[in-house]
Amino acid sequence: MTRLWDKGLPLADRVLRYTAGEDHELDARLVRYDVRGSIAHAEMLAATGLIGDDDLTAIRDGLTALETSFEAGEWQIELEDEDVHTALESRLTDRIGEAGARLHLGRSRNDQVLTALRLYLLDAGDHLTERVEQLRKALTALAERQAALALPGYTHMQQAMPSTVALWCGGFDEALADAVQGLRAARRRIDKNPLGSAAGYGTPGLPLDRDMTTAKLGFASKQWPVTAVQLSRGKAESGLLFEITLLLQDLGRMASDLLLFYTQEFGYVSLAADVTTGSSIMPQKRNPDVLELIRASQATAQSCLDEALMITAKLPSGYQRDLQRLKAPVFRAVDLAVDSVDIMAYLLEGLRFNPERIRMDDGLYATEAAYRLVREQGLTFRDAYRQIAAGILSEDT
Amino acid sequence: MTRLWDKGLPLADRVLRYTAGEDHELDARLVRYDVRGSIAHAEMLAATGLIGDDDLTAIRDGLTALETSFEAGEWQIELEDEDVHTALESRLTDRIGEAGARLHLGRSRNDQVLTALRLYLLDAGDHLTERVEQLRKALTALAERQAALALPGYTHMQQAMPSTVALWCGGFDEALADAVQGLRAARRRIDKNPLGSAAGYGTPGLPLDRDMTTAKLGFASKQWPVTAVQLSRGKAESGLLFEITLLLQDLGRMASDLLLFYTQEFGYVSLAADVTTGSSIMPQKRNPDVLELIRASQATAQSCLDEALMITAKLPSGYQRDLQRLKAPVFRAVDLAVDSVDIMAYLLEGLRFNPERIRMDDGLYATEAAYRLVREQGLTFRDAYRQIAAGILSEDT
Amino acid sequence: MTRLWDKGLPLADRVLRYTAGEDHELDARLVRYDVRGSIAHAEMLAATGLIGDDDLTAIRDGLTALETSFEAGEWQIELEDEDVHTALESRLTDRIGEAGARLHLGRSRNDQVLTALRLYLLDAGDHLTERVEQLRKALTALAERQAALALPGYTHMQQAMPSTVALWCGGFDEALADAVQGLRAARRRIDKNPLGSAAGYGTPGLPLDRDMTTAKLGFASKQWPVTAVQLSRGKAESGLLFEITLLLQDLGRMASDLLLFYTQEFGYVSLAADVTTGSSIMPQKRNPDVLELIRASQATAQSCLDEALMITAKLPSGYQRDLQRLKAPVFRAVDLAVDSVDIMAYLLEGLRFNPERIRMDDGLYATEAAYRLVREQGLTFRDAYRQIAAGILSEDT
Amino acid sequence: MTRLWDKGLPLADRVLRYTAGEDHELDARLVRYDVRGSIAHAEMLAATGLIGDDDLTAIRDGLTALETSFEAGEWQIELEDEDVHTALESRLTDRIGEAGARLHLGRSRNDQVLTALRLYLLDAGDHLTERVEQLRKALTALAERQAALALPGYTHMQQAMPSTVALWCGGFDEALADAVQGLRAARRRIDKNPLGSAAGYGTPGLPLDRDMTTAKLGFASKQWPVTAVQLSRGKAESGLLFEITLLLQDLGRMASDLLLFYTQEFGYVSLAADVTTGSSIMPQKRNPDVLELIRASQATAQSCLDEALMITAKLPSGYQRDLQRLKAPVFRAVDLAVDSVDIMAYLLEGLRFNPERIRMDDGLYATEAAYRLVREQGLTFRDAYRQIAAGILSEDT
Repeated sequence: MTRLWDKGLPLADRVLRYTAGEDHELDARLVRYDVRGSIAHAEMLAATGLIGDDDLTAIRDGLTALETSFEAGEWQIELEDEDVHTALESRLTDRIGEAGARLHLGRSRNDQVLTALRLYLLDAGDHLTERVEQLRKALTALAERQAALALPGYTHMQQAMPSTVALWCGGFDEALADAVQGLRAARRRIDKNPLGSAAGYGTPGLPLDRDMTTAKLGFASKQWPVTAVQLSRGKAESGLLFEITLLLQDLGRMASDLLLFYTQEFGYVSLAADVTTGSSIMPQKRNPDVLELIRASQATAQSCLDEALMITAKLPSGYQRDLQRLKAPVFRAVDLAVDSVDIMAYLLEGLRFNPERIRMDDGLYATEAAYRLVREQGLTFRDAYRQIAAGILSEDT
Repeated sequence: MTRLWDKGLPLADRVLRYTAGEDHELDARLVRYDVRGSIAHAEMLAATGLIGDDDLTAIRDGLTALETSFEAGEWQIELEDEDVHTALESRLTDRIGEAGARLHLGRSRNDQVLTALRLYLLDAGDHLTERVEQLRKALTALAERQAALALPGYTHMQQAMPSTVALWCGGFDEALADAVQGLRAARRRIDKNPLGSAAGYGTPGLPLDRDMTTAKLGFASKQWPVTAVQLSRGKAESGLLFEITLLLQDLGRMASDLLLFYTQEFGYVSLAADVTTGSSIMPQKRNPDVLELIRASQATAQSCLDEALMITAKLPSGYQRDLQRLKAPVFRAVDLAVDSVDIMAYLLEGLRFNPERIRMDDGLYATEAAYRLVREQGLTFRDAYRQIAAGILSEDT
Repeated sequence: MTRLWDKGLPLADRVLRYTAGEDHELDARLVRYDVRGSIAHAEMLAATGLIGDDDLTAIRDGLTALETSFEAGEWQIELEDEDVHTALESRLTDRIGEAGARLHLGRSRNDQVLTALRLYLLDAGDHLTERVEQLRKALTALAERQAALALPGYTHMQQAMPSTVALWCGGFDEALADAVQGLRAARRRIDKNPLGSAAGYGTPGLPLDRDMTTAKLGFASKQWPVTAVQLSRGKAESGLLFEITLLLQDLGRMASDLLLFYTQEFGYVSLAADVTTGSSIMPQKRNPDVLELIRASQATAQSCLDEALMITAKLPSGYQRDLQRLKAPVFRAVDLAVDSVDIMAYLLEGLRFNPERIRMDDGLYATEAAYRLVREQGLTFRDAYRQIAAGILSEDT
Repeated sequence: MTRLWDKGLPLADRVLRYTAGEDHELDARLVRYDVRGSIAHAEMLAATGLIGDDDLTAIRDGLTALETSFEAGEWQIELEDEDVHTALESRLTDRIGEAGARLHLGRSRNDQVLTALRLYLLDAGDHLTERVEQLRKALTALAERQAALALPGYTHMQQAMPSTVALWCGGFDEALADAVQGLRAARRRIDKNPLGSAAGYGTPGLPLDRDMTTAKLGFASKQWPVTAVQLSRGKAESGLLFEITLLLQDLGRMASDLLLFYTQEFGYVSLAADVTTGSSIMPQKRNPDVLELIRASQATAQSCLDEALMITAKLPSGYQRDLQRLKAPVFRAVDLAVDSVDIMAYLLEGLRFNPERIRMDDGLYATEAAYRLVREQGLTFRDAYRQIAAGILSEDT
């Protein structure tokens, strides 16, 4: 995003840039997945006799070498390549000749894109899950450090009933455990093999073995019928984005609590110096920027979800180029989620509740007192409530 | 929504109207669920000795009678009641006296709201699932009526490869089967008993048996720890709204296909007269309004999802009154989904593909021809592709 | 929204209910505007000789009487009427016979809907503007009551630099003044006469005088060409919704400040008793529910904006029935905005900053001290900043 | 976005990366604006005697040289710089020594960010306006090439009334003219000088001349009071994003029309070869990818608007670090809008309506026939309508 206005570029080049979009940058993370998908496809073509074994060997070796050299930084996907798929196939054909030109038999760029993307999404979900589990450990460690410390429990941002650091942590830990279950459940929509659906109408006259690629790629099932594949575009993505939105909302709400607790007026928590930043004008400030940015993260995640859902809305069935735009919001949200989760874990490690500042309002115990009246004097709860309330009001006067 | 501007209303009344909002109208559908929740709570209180058995009997009979009279239209929730919970408890106490005032022991309106709402959400999800299964039957019946009829398969809205009515129906049927699985999976976040968490910090000094209410109400588990309950508000709702958004997107995309097929220029389908409407100015028109409104439905569903997600965003933990606003978007989306699914099923029953109008472009068979070249002449796919493409271009000239 | 599931209703009736939607309820507020639009149209038809003067008199008298009887509660728009337009025209024809059947000459329900809606939107914007001006007065009164009272100025929710009640109020007052300007600017997209565009393609062979209806209805201009009218649907609505979203965001942010100031830990403000509410379980609580609900309002407003924008997205040009769904989010947001603005004004009247609780941190004056070093000792700002910062750090130790 | 998961990076570095975010990349486009803002600030400091004239000369020359060398590609903003403001100030101080350290007197990074951003937004709006005017020329040229060609006018995607290419173009041209007016109106919220508000609470003890920087930077006014500045963050951005959303919706709807017209079944338009692309599997295809991507653009624009609105929602007043996240969605939407407008203009240049394929349905003239009955035979419109409708129905039989 360095350009200001590019009046110079010929319009023909701008058509390419408009249609290819950011793919040449975005697709870097898909190289390994496209290689895996292509090798599985080639193995299936060879097993069904549609290409020779020597073709398969050349394809497999060629793609593996290309992946290695890509990760070594020896080449990049260029705008002229349009995307990772063309980049790999053209470089493969340059390298191994005719065998490379046989690889695309029985598939379309559409199902190839989808295969690579789903393999990525599975990994991304797993990876994020693992990070959330790390965050839960940081939360548990915090709970253990100061478990029994009394903390006001709030409703309406007012002191309501007695709570503890352990309960505060426990509430968020349940939320994160739920996020983990949600991320796992989101696999259901991802874990379906699209390969073999080609442009969405199968491969008439070609005896592909879709079960074989399903097994080789480790998908839970093959998606069926072929017309379902393109119609489902965006759902797996949105499912993951929805879970990320909830997760980042939990983090954002934890940040809201901590930002409140970190005000001078509360003073309930201290933060490690390396997660606060100074001010360019006020020499005295140590600002909780990390927490503020975490709080802002849900806005980005939810807008990624919105974007994904709106891209596919109202489209007639069958592949449409609009679908290409699904990648950017997915990658943006995944990266933000991983970073936010990690940073929050780091922040919690240096967080300390300040017992000397925590102030428990007398009113916190009013409900318990009402319960006592019910149990000891047999009042109805409504009467006990009124009696306690009356006492508080007269004290106020 | 009949009012224009109500300058007359005293401001004190407007505070009540503002805080109570639409609850007195919205909550009508929650009467039966609040009664169930309250009876389970009372049974638990009696079992743990916190109220007497005669109290329980009075409460159970009183609430059952109130539910019956409500469904008979004998009373309504009034603005002054604020919501279903107060409406029931105050009428109960009017009816049975002191026993009614004992009912609220060990619970808060917060967990009571949540209990009723979750019981409703479980039913709503089941109900919608059942309707989607009916829609699938209508789709299957259509597929059976005209299964083998050839239909162009489109990509980029261009004729691409041969398809059939069966494949068109099959793609959407898979989408609906996926929706059913999604609706079932959405139960996970709903199916947790909040009762006993009270205001979010439990009931200090009161020996409630949360497992008993969990069992009585049929929840899969109790939500734990107590601080998790209010923190999870909105997630169960959003989970259902997300599934509804995907479902209505599928219906909207089916509508987009059919609206295209129903243009005079395509003429691929006929609609039964009773799902089309006339024009107030153009005597000749039979408009597919039902399909247009179905197409528009996702906008409403997605905005309900957005609203729910935004309501809880950034809130400090603990109950906040903001959460009250979650109900309206949920009910709006559930009703719209049920109606849209049913209407689409009805429309499909009267839908007919017109074989005499369907035109299969010659180009539809080009891929198959390329595959034939590969298999019969041993060409690479890329060469076969180029050869067929060259042939098409020369024909064009 | 009282229904649970209505299995009973015959599907044919459900088609009507689905297509008519909530219009029969929503349209109540449009009666007066549709009457105005119809009378202007009839006057123009009479002036151009397309109907007789006696027809005009009958139409004008009939519609006026219908409006009066509607406002007196003598009739309502029924589901069977579908919408206000049919309700009025059919009742008019019942009343005045043939003259009623002449009224629809040269117009379509599409441009009629749009005329009534735009007249309503102009009034709604004006009305809301007036309410915002009242809120500004309440804010000014608060500023005047406690203008000079010192208040910490916050950045990052940390005490940053000295501020005052006057400055706090002044910031929000500028925001509201901006909202007023925004609401006025939103008139630009509303204030165009659609009447005469009929179904979006004009009235071939009929010599309508669109300038006459433009003048009679007080529109700033007529919308031209006719094909622009339906293409612009949703823009006027979204423009108003966007302004409402910003306005409710300002109110929500003011509520966030006040909720913070109202915590026991801050204690900076007191609220009048009638804008707080009690708790069903905790006898001691006085909760700031009104502020919480105001904070939640933007979620609703923004989702209304989202809904409106999504309804029209991707639609082919020309009228589509989808557009009917624009009304509900607009009315919902307008009502919420009026209510929220009024309630906030009421709340501010009873608000008091508590001087005895406001605590000014020493660090608030650090920037001013650095400025003094610059001016008195000629240090660069960066050096002065470092010197002050060093002093603060050594004090901390 | 090339990274997959970066387990290697030390967490301290990740804090920097998390807080600095993408700023070092995004801010490239702000260099020229920050230089302009800093020079104006320095000139004001010199004029009010807060720095010397030699300091001013050194600052002005230094910044101008830095801008020139930046545009020549001689340096970039690095992650370590955090953002353009630090990057420029630290390089300036390296270059000119003490004078550089005097520059930050009387301003905060907050108002500096806002100054640069607003100057950019003004230019971006103007630039986009200019491009939209070019698109209008392309549309006018198309209208002129085939103005009188008859085209069916559609409602409900059904042939409704007669239209022409000129009317089709005219409707969209009015929409674009409206977009231009909207973009101009969006300047109102941008065109306010924030400089001098510092961290949002002014510069106590420093006699800044805010009117001077207002005049030097060409802002329409200075924003006042100082507390209004940070409270208004996001509004100018959202205002522009709202206009971009409407604009891209117009383009998307034009694309929807053209995608329909470009189907083989309609065949109403031809596209130049260079805006269509081939298929990787189907040799016969020429796909209208550019139009599909334009159709998808609103999803991105609207989600950018949503993100901006959500970032600021519910924040307490005063600067919060969350606001940093506003830049990415703004830049993303501006770039997409400019590109989409330009590509659509290019596409229209090569677009041709195909008279030989356009088919006018007989029913198109039914309304005109009804009008004739009214005028020639004195029927009421409702009777004429019924008579024509009856004739059509009997023909159908």
